[in-house]
Amino acid sequence: MKFVLAPDSFKESMTAKMAALAMEKGIKNVFPDAECVIVPMADGGEGTVESLVDGLNGTVIDIEVTGPLGDKVLANYGLLGDKKTAVIEMASASGIQLIKKEMRNPLFTTTYGTGELIKDALDRGAKRILIGIGGSATNDGGLGMLQALGASFKDKEGKELSFGGGSLKELDTIDTSQLDGRLASVTIEVACDVTNPLVGPNGASYIFGPQKGATPEIVKQLDQNLTHFANKIYEFTGKDIAEKEGAGAAGGLGAGLMAFLNAELKRGIELVIEYTDLEKKMVGADFVFTGEGSIDGQTLYGKTPYGVARTASRLNIPVIAFAGRVGAGIEELYKHGFTSVIGILKEVTSIEEALQSGEKNLASAAENICRIIQLK
Amino acid sequence: MKFVLAPDSFKESMTAKMAALAMEKGIKNVFPDAECVIVPMADGGEGTVESLVDGLNGTVIDIEVTGPLGDKVLANYGLLGDKKTAVIEMASASGIQLIKKEMRNPLFTTTYGTGELIKDALDRGAKRILIGIGGSATNDGGLGMLQALGASFKDKEGKELSFGGGSLKELDTIDTSQLDGRLASVTIEVACDVTNPLVGPNGASYIFGPQKGATPEIVKQLDQNLTHFANKIYEFTGKDIAEKEGAGAAGGLGAGLMAFLNAELKRGIELVIEYTDLEKKMVGADFVFTGEGSIDGQTLYGKTPYGVARTASRLNIPVIAFAGRVGAGIEELYKHGFTSVIGILKEVTSIEEALQSGEKNLASAAENICRIIQLK
Repeated sequence: MKFVLAPDSFKESMTAKMAALAMEKGIKNVFPDAECVIVPMADGGEGTVESLVDGLNGTVIDIEVTGPLGDKVLANYGLLGDKKTAVIEMASASGIQLIKKEMRNPLFTTTYGTGELIKDALDRGAKRILIGIGGSATNDGGLGMLQALGASFKDKEGKELSFGGGSLKELDTIDTSQLDGRLASVTIEVACDVTNPLVGPNGASYIFGPQKGATPEIVKQLDQNLTHFANKIYEFTGKDIAEKEGAGAAGGLGAGLMAFLNAELKRGIELVIEYTDLEKKMVGADFVFTGEGSIDGQTLYGKTPYGVARTASRLNIPVIAFAGRVGAGIEELYKHGFTSVIGILKEVTSIEEALQSGEKNLASAAENICRIIQLK
Repeated sequence: MKFVLAPDSFKESMTAKMAALAMEKGIKNVFPDAECVIVPMADGGEGTVESLVDGLNGTVIDIEVTGPLGDKVLANYGLLGDKKTAVIEMASASGIQLIKKEMRNPLFTTTYGTGELIKDALDRGAKRILIGIGGSATNDGGLGMLQALGASFKDKEGKELSFGGGSLKELDTIDTSQLDGRLASVTIEVACDVTNPLVGPNGASYIFGPQKGATPEIVKQLDQNLTHFANKIYEFTGKDIAEKEGAGAAGGLGAGLMAFLNAELKRGIELVIEYTDLEKKMVGADFVFTGEGSIDGQTLYGKTPYGVARTASRLNIPVIAFAGRVGAGIEELYKHGFTSVIGILKEVTSIEEALQSGEKNLASAAENICRIIQLK
């Protein structure tokens, strides 16, 4: 019997690895000799570094970088076991959670720290970098990130632009001659599940600006600034980035990465599946177990269990998904490779207790399902 | 595919029949052609009349009888489809729930109403009567029940004893010549899960008296009275009832039923299994689904799912149990015919919402389990 255990984290309850180990415990109670292949998963959002580090023999690198408001913050990223692959969550250096609500203003927030993480990864020998870009506090089009890596963005007076989406309107000349040369040979892949363009009514500023603290006036200014930035990018690189799908992700960080670092944007879960070699690990498996804190009809929109189920269904392997919360719409999941969606809660309880009992409940649910599988 | 659906009620959420129908709904979503045999179950306690009436084409008979304090109460019992079998819960006529807490005193409470239910069943042609004796308010040794059926219990002055366990100390002569003659040919089976004797430290008065409102002094008095009653019974019938297992059930109603009506005491679940012909219905089934509001290690002590699992395991049919609450100790259940114990809760919620979502959650859980069964 071979099981592939590929859950996401159960947020605030278990990391993906803990969840996989809990599943394994339940399975082994029924099938002591089962082969359990543990593949901690993520969808490119929060927990991606943790899961890939856990699953691929990685190390977490802690490093002080420039936070979104220019102050110093302690961030981290992952260097995987091959020593050639780095995994970065931009939110670690430039995330909205780093700024108190009343201080949030994307006119001033910078992605500089994200650039510093990339640079550190290069220093440590990374040849392939996965960047998760959810949860940003920024709307600077990647300006700060590029500055940290050596590119220069100057105003008419020849002065380097200051931090934040507000200064982009001053942009006159772009100079990438000092951009870190190692970037030319590095593969940068961006985990990005949004398709918003850089500018316009569906662009970064209008759609995501408000949740980062921008007032309607600021939103308008930011959108004009990104438009100006796109024009300058086009002048300089010949790339028309303004309308490109995903260019508006993370306040335009998507645009900056695509325009200057040849980054490729992909669905987060697809990247994680690729990095973990999930499909290969599934070959010959009798069952795939996946899971996440909450599963419902929305899971089809790029959530981890959906990616796992799709991969498994290509190989005709049944997929059983476990969740702390099973919401509405799971019938839809049945059409996409999910055999079954199992709630792990054992009784009415507080959310705190439920989160605390996650491992126990998941192990027990996996065991009870295996006892049915065993009937075969 | 044949399924036998034999749940108990999920208290305050679903009757046993509702639970079985919810299971059926989930099953049919996966196996539209499955044969689902619905057998609402009970364990002899609350809900036994409802389940047997629901499952065996019965009718509920509403009838005004004498309540435990001598006042009139509206009670009911079940007459099953064969018109020859009656199912009575003594608590309907003589239960503790009929008396306000401050009025509870087993010196005065009578089982007279239970006798009236039996009499009404006889009037309607019942030849076999199942009596569930949980939840009593009484400690009268069945005195009232026997009086209602025509037996006479007089004091030294030749006066009929008044209601309640307090008057038994006056008992001088017993006369059953006027006891309803139909009882001689009727089979009375008592669903009884307690093994307490009539008297002594483990007897009716000491063990169950306090929860019926008896003070320590009253308990002592009640125990002396039941001892006196047992002596009188021995004189009159030659039956030594005092130490008999179960004689102390329902304040000694067990003793009265055994001594004067040749009643047989059996485990409630065993009787329900017998009355529902459960084992025969299971023949040829691929799966048995059972369930109850709460399942845990205690389920082994005579609860419905345990009885169902034991019966199924004799036929080598896998049993999947569903519960709103899955408590500690279910590993023990695996050793007794349970294949799997599945919690039906889908998310953290209030008890009220959980109870209200019972049918939906149970149907969904059954469906998800069937989707795994389908893999075979």
